This record gives sequence, C-alpha cells and structure tokens, in this order.
Amino acid sequence: MTDAPELAIRPATEADLPAIVAMLADDPLGATRESPDDLTPYRAALERLTDDPNQHLVVAVHADRVVGTLQLTIVPGLSRKGSTRSIIEGVRVHADERGSGLGTRMVEWAIDKSRAENCDLVQLTSDASRTDAHRFYERLGFAASHVGFKLQL
Amino acid sequence: MTDAPELAIRPATEADLPAIVAMLADDPLGATRESPDDLTPYRAALERLTDDPNQHLVVAVHADRVVGTLQLTIVPGLSRKGSTRSIIEGVRVHADERGSGLGTRMVEWAIDKSRAENCDLVQLTSDASRTDAHRFYERLGFAASHVGFKLQL
Repeated sequence: MTDAPELAIRPATEADLPAIVAMLADDPLGATRESPDDLTPYRAALERLTDDPNQHLVVAVHADRVVGTLQLTIVPGLSRKGSTRSIIEGVRVHADERGSGLGTRMVEWAIDKSRAENCDLVQLTSDASRTDAHRFYERLGFAASHVGFKLQL
Repeated sequence: MTDAPELAIRPATEADLPAIVAMLADDPLGATRESPDDLTPYRAALERLTDDPNQHLVVAVHADRVVGTLQLTIVPGLSRKGSTRSIIEGVRVHADERGSGLGTRMVEWAIDKSRAENCDLVQLTSDASRTDAHRFYERLGFAASHVGFKLQL
C-alpha cells in the first residue's frame, strides 16, 4: 500500500467556488448553463446556502485539490408520518477523477449524512439523457420509481 | 352567476392537521404510509415546517372546509448560475373536489409563489404509477425530462 492522500468531504467555502463552478460547467448539460468567468451570482447563492441549516453544500478534496461537489437539502414534511427526506442535487466529479469511485464515496457521504439527520428517504432526479448516472444510482440502491417533472420559469 | 364561496390558499396551521392527514391517507399509495389516528408525528413535522422560511405548507379552503394541500420547498443552489429552484411535494385534493380544477389552482399558486421567490425552475417527482398525475403536470407545462430515484433508509 502506498501513502495515498486521504479524501476529505467538507463544507464548501468561497475559496472553493472557482473549482466548483468549473466542474458545474464541465458537463454536457452544464456547459451551456454556467458562467465560470463571473462568480458573482455563485457567491450570493453560496452565502444563502451557508446560512441555511438544512443545506449542506460540500466539496471532496484529494491531495489539496477540489475534485468533487454535491448539494444535500434536508426537507421536513408531513407525508409518511411526518417523515424528513433529503434531496441530492448538483453531483459533479472532476474529469481527472472519474471512474475512481469518488462519486460513490460522495453519494455514500450524502446517505450517511441523511441518516444522521433522521431522514427516512433520499431522493434525486437525473436528466433522462444521463443513462450512465442512472446505472450508477441503481448500483447504490436507488430505485428509479418516479418521473421527474421540471418547469422553467 | 351564483355567489359561489371563494377558494382560499393559505399557510397550514395545527387545526388543519386532521383534514390534511386524512387527505394524505386517502390515496392508493398513502393508505399504507400514514397514521390518521395518531397526529403526534405530524404535529412535530408541522412545527419544523412553520419555523423554516423556505417551507410553504398550504391548504386550500373552500366553504370553510380544507379540501387540498401541498408543500412548496424553496431550494437555493449553485447550479445554473446560482439559481434558486422550488420543489412541490405532497399534492392532495379531497375526493369530493377532484375534477373541479382545484389541483390546477393549487399548482398555479405554487408556480406564482415560486416566481415571487425568484425561482428559475419548479420541479417535482411523481410515482411512475400515477399516470393521471403525469398528464395533469404536462398540461400545466411541466416536462417529464428526468428520472426520479428514491432510496428508503
């Protein structure tokens, strides 16, 4: 065994924004939706996330580089006897680290955090075109039981 | 025109819980998941929702009867240039009012509220078995663009 650098998953800070936004933009769908040259709107959004105890925006750090990100939202509710659920959004793994198991580690982190927050259910939606992602979530135990609807405003 | 009673959509209160839980339970999927005879877990969940400024649990009231409910969650995020999105959950219409357009009124309320909260996107998931609901959301302009994954903890 070599002394491979440990992977850390920790809350995102403003200093992580360039790396996070670069990952959001380095994606077939994200390429047209992000503005990595102007971080202003992301700074405002990060502040709002940081102030909200039900929001957990994290980065995965490996050898001092930000190589992954995801957002976990804790959603209390009345359905299912007052169950709390969690929602995973914005999962991104740096191109250099794909296939390394990092995505699995990050989603497992989100599942563990959801248990710690007394959630009964973890949910997410994935664009119908992301068939590799669908297999990935099914391997992690998720069931593709729902149809995800979106309305752009 | 008769003087038909107005429909009001307003934040849910503890007094509404019996009617809300009865609607959650009066549903092919909800029947096995709810406990209308024990409101204790719902009271705790309602308190948590009421304390959270990003949560909007509402009821529709018609002629002094609670006839509908939905939960709207406002979710800030980094993706899409720091967009805020909203998520609709737990849409229920009383059996006596189905087909009356009440569901449409409630979802239109959620869309209007999402705009007022500066959301760029409204999303929801619907169980794959609820094909009538899928047509309903498509008529309202939602696109069935995603696959919804769930993991029970």
